[in-house]
Amino acid sequence: MSIYNAPIRDMQFAMRELAGLDEVAQLPGNEEVSIDLVDAILEEADKFASGVLAPLNRVGDQEGAKWKDGEVLTAPGWKHAYGQFCESGWTAVACDPRYGGQGLPKLLSTAVMEMWKSANMAFSLCPMLTTGAIEALMLRGTDEQKDMYLPKMVSGEWTGTMNLTEPQAGSDLAAVRTKAEPQGDGTYKIFGQKIFITYGEHDMTDNIVHLVLARLPDAPEGVKGISLFVVPKFLVNADGSLGARNDVHCVSIEHKLGIHASPTAVLAFGDKGGAIGTLVGEPNRGLEYMFIMMNEARFAVGMEGLALSERAYQHALQYAKDRIQGTEAGVRGGPKVSIIHHADVRRLLMNMKSKTEAMRALAYVVAAATDKAHHHPDEAVRAQNQAFVDLMIPVVKGWSTENSIDVASDGVQVHGGMGFIEETGAAQHLRDARITTIYEGTTAIQANDLIGRKIARENGATIAALIEAMRGVQAELSAADGEAFAAIARSLGAGIAAVEEAVAYILATYGKDVKAASVGSVPFLKLLGIVAGGWQMGRAALIAKRRLEAGEGEPDFYQAKIVTARFYADHVLAQAPGLAYTIVNGATGALELTEEQF
Amino acid sequence: MSIYNAPIRDMQFAMRELAGLDEVAQLPGNEEVSIDLVDAILEEADKFASGVLAPLNRVGDQEGAKWKDGEVLTAPGWKHAYGQFCESGWTAVACDPRYGGQGLPKLLSTAVMEMWKSANMAFSLCPMLTTGAIEALMLRGTDEQKDMYLPKMVSGEWTGTMNLTEPQAGSDLAAVRTKAEPQGDGTYKIFGQKIFITYGEHDMTDNIVHLVLARLPDAPEGVKGISLFVVPKFLVNADGSLGARNDVHCVSIEHKLGIHASPTAVLAFGDKGGAIGTLVGEPNRGLEYMFIMMNEARFAVGMEGLALSERAYQHALQYAKDRIQGTEAGVRGGPKVSIIHHADVRRLLMNMKSKTEAMRALAYVVAAATDKAHHHPDEAVRAQNQAFVDLMIPVVKGWSTENSIDVASDGVQVHGGMGFIEETGAAQHLRDARITTIYEGTTAIQANDLIGRKIARENGATIAALIEAMRGVQAELSAADGEAFAAIARSLGAGIAAVEEAVAYILATYGKDVKAASVGSVPFLKLLGIVAGGWQMGRAALIAKRRLEAGEGEPDFYQAKIVTARFYADHVLAQAPGLAYTIVNGATGALELTEEQF
Repeated sequence: MSIYNAPIRDMQFAMRELAGLDEVAQLPGNEEVSIDLVDAILEEADKFASGVLAPLNRVGDQEGAKWKDGEVLTAPGWKHAYGQFCESGWTAVACDPRYGGQGLPKLLSTAVMEMWKSANMAFSLCPMLTTGAIEALMLRGTDEQKDMYLPKMVSGEWTGTMNLTEPQAGSDLAAVRTKAEPQGDGTYKIFGQKIFITYGEHDMTDNIVHLVLARLPDAPEGVKGISLFVVPKFLVNADGSLGARNDVHCVSIEHKLGIHASPTAVLAFGDKGGAIGTLVGEPNRGLEYMFIMMNEARFAVGMEGLALSERAYQHALQYAKDRIQGTEAGVRGGPKVSIIHHADVRRLLMNMKSKTEAMRALAYVVAAATDKAHHHPDEAVRAQNQAFVDLMIPVVKGWSTENSIDVASDGVQVHGGMGFIEETGAAQHLRDARITTIYEGTTAIQANDLIGRKIARENGATIAALIEAMRGVQAELSAADGEAFAAIARSLGAGIAAVEEAVAYILATYGKDVKAASVGSVPFLKLLGIVAGGWQMGRAALIAKRRLEAGEGEPDFYQAKIVTARFYADHVLAQAPGLAYTIVNGATGALELTEEQF
Repeated sequence: MSIYNAPIRDMQFAMRELAGLDEVAQLPGNEEVSIDLVDAILEEADKFASGVLAPLNRVGDQEGAKWKDGEVLTAPGWKHAYGQFCESGWTAVACDPRYGGQGLPKLLSTAVMEMWKSANMAFSLCPMLTTGAIEALMLRGTDEQKDMYLPKMVSGEWTGTMNLTEPQAGSDLAAVRTKAEPQGDGTYKIFGQKIFITYGEHDMTDNIVHLVLARLPDAPEGVKGISLFVVPKFLVNADGSLGARNDVHCVSIEHKLGIHASPTAVLAFGDKGGAIGTLVGEPNRGLEYMFIMMNEARFAVGMEGLALSERAYQHALQYAKDRIQGTEAGVRGGPKVSIIHHADVRRLLMNMKSKTEAMRALAYVVAAATDKAHHHPDEAVRAQNQAFVDLMIPVVKGWSTENSIDVASDGVQVHGGMGFIEETGAAQHLRDARITTIYEGTTAIQANDLIGRKIARENGATIAALIEAMRGVQAELSAADGEAFAAIARSLGAGIAAVEEAVAYILATYGKDVKAASVGSVPFLKLLGIVAGGWQMGRAALIAKRRLEAGEGEPDFYQAKIVTARFYADHVLAQAPGLAYTIVNGATGALELTEEQF
């Protein structure tokens, strides 16, 4: 069985030295946050992740969730673990104290979330979806809705779901057909079928609170005619006790490539007369509310990319240290060695390690910016941070998840033939990772959001500021002594130039030929991820150099930071100019064939 | 269910116009080969592949092979299909006519093999392994062994296996421990356990002929003490009838990520007194014999990379044409369109299509060179072709299989959420593809063979000739009119320069620091694959231009060739300079960490 231990030292480094935990702790509302408290929470979370959740990851994959007569049984041990998770207060970490939450900073809840997702991604989806539903109700729910649902959702006693997709409405929510009929008493009857509903049905709690996109009778066509409703599995009486079973039923669950333990439900609303729901916020603004929450959800899926990469790396590393095979290269008849001695195994491990650290650094910096965007006393600082967060969310989501497929696949490769055997567990990470580039908006949807709403619409203002910040780090790297720093500075410089070239192309092209710009959107998202990750790796190397020169901290850790940044520069950042070439030149070849010529 | 139809038009193009089918047909021994015969065989093979094998691909994945009390049951319908396969003579296509084979050229058997592997990769492994065993016996078997086994293996009445791997001896065969004890009567008793034996046990034939690596009592340590034995499941009487059950038993089969229908057996030899076998060739030369066959087997696995890419492409293309979602970019409120209209779906499909065509072109050119290496009357031409084949085999194997993982993953992405649902079938291609970079030598093993035995050992002579040939095509492209040709020439030129830079580094480094060279070996293998693929795409574009200008053939097909080559240049060849950078600069960062610093 694969073992997981939270990479606490690297998390601390990313939180304290890259993301500015001190600064976050000084924001209004974070008065009780201290380094000691943060460390204590990380330690407790690690215990739960490594001790309770990680051991259930494999049984979840093997047994999966099972559908029977409309009920869904979670895998053996899951219900108990969920109970412990709630009792330990983990559902409440990031929630509003008014409803029982702990109100801890995003930076901290991000590190904790990384652990859940590394330890057991399929499990983590349940609290993640609940968090999304909590936010929707916090943002737009009536006081009555808040009082009825939030305390029990924050405590984890009830879970939440998001019901968007229908068979004909996947990425295109304008096609949503589920209907909501007003009953005249403030409630609505909901009719329709939703698919791909994560934890849409399960046996871990007494109630499930569904948030559902549906159309009112008089709603306009398209995305501006969609409203948001809250539809509980069991109706809730005025005293908070459970009432009648609502008319929402799980028709089936999907047989999926991965995340087998996370039930993906087909839900039928209203087959027996109508599912009772209440409106959240104003009519016809449902999609708008979804978009407000989207940043949060997309960031969380980006964390899955990071978390699965970390898990796959730990798994492969352990195998590479244990597995004895062959001799040192060039040493015939020498002693047999562990495969970490072989050059390509090292290359694979360094690829996994350096990308994972780059993803973590970038994600935590974005998490800290989110805290500042919400809580900084200076409005200009808030706005500046929000713009940065908005720009980077599609990158954290798209780049980290695309990476995770490659990293998990590298992990299989390190295992050789054993990687292909399911008992080894390496293949599960690849299977689990494969959903992350699809749900909460495919990579293409992230990429179009990035080049359209986040760059073209504001004529590149925020990304210009980012480029300036990255140039500053590159200048510091160039000025630093040593071959490693010269190498990092060179690749980062070429990477930033590639981003500049690509941004210029996007700004020049988007308005007049959106398809041509869009062909380059995913390559651009990857380019920006690679370079922004390199920016953070460069910062990390500079910090490490200062620590080493000052004789502070663990030399092994900080030396490794410099080596890892250099590897990233030579192996990952090196791809940046080629991506820019594709973005700038690649539209014609992609668009020229007729449909029949394919 | 996913439909497969052999891409006969592109196969014909690659065979006739790129690989020189005419020239192959004129080689001694190929007197009966004509364009008409080839077309007739392709057509028949397509019927069998699309009509019989492809429909069994999904049931094979779902039901898999099942172990029970030492027996292995193949999936429903498989035994019958195997019988039809043999009756139709498909097992004999490439075999020696002396033993009932048809002796058809490698170029043709390659195209036919592509179909089996696209239609049903798990099925195709059975005849593929049999072919390997046939070759071993052809090469080094005694007349008695040949007469006893070959006719029934060529006809498919019996199948063959290759028994190399043991738990402690994966990539490192020096560690093989299976013992062979001479009985004094010309037979040997074999004792040991072999793992990962493809079709090591099954119910499709009455007998299975195992070829087994084992050590004689007096054998030296390491790779020079391994001998090759033939060990049938049932002993064979002098009259060819089946005798006693031999002491080789299937202990279990593996539960794998993919190719579920291909039983991967653990075989115990000699648990009940010793499995009877006979020696193939001379003692202690077993590994050498394996290496002779290795080119063939590695090429065949490379074909799996191509074949799964083709299958995944067809699957995704069909979905992209059928699935209606969203409107044309920039057209708000316009009619809903199929997703092939969306820029990123096109980019994904063009990525899949262009890589698949490049892999096919390169593989078929290598197949034709194999025919010339074996049959050309001029010894110098034979030698030149053999050197080219030896250089390219690790590229066809490593590059095509690495590609197939990406291409199959792109296929999942085109399907969106449906791609993650197993019923869709897109995920199976990814799961099946994931083994191809591992078995018959991992990509790293291919890459070390490439830079060591194929480049450094001969000081780059063969690759210098290849570079010269590629430069010739680049010059033709540069001289051709039109924006597309300028784009292709530019990227191919940059790609060739990248190969030159990388080769210079390898030649300068390999002898003095093999680890540093090896860090770049997989990136180099990918680089050479990308550029050699681009060379063939460039040739294809030039041929297409001549056809179009001469008014010959189908304009749609030839125009598409030019567009596809251009896409490949802008999107795939564009990665070449970055890979060269990594090869030349990437060693230090990969090798510098201590084991503890990971």
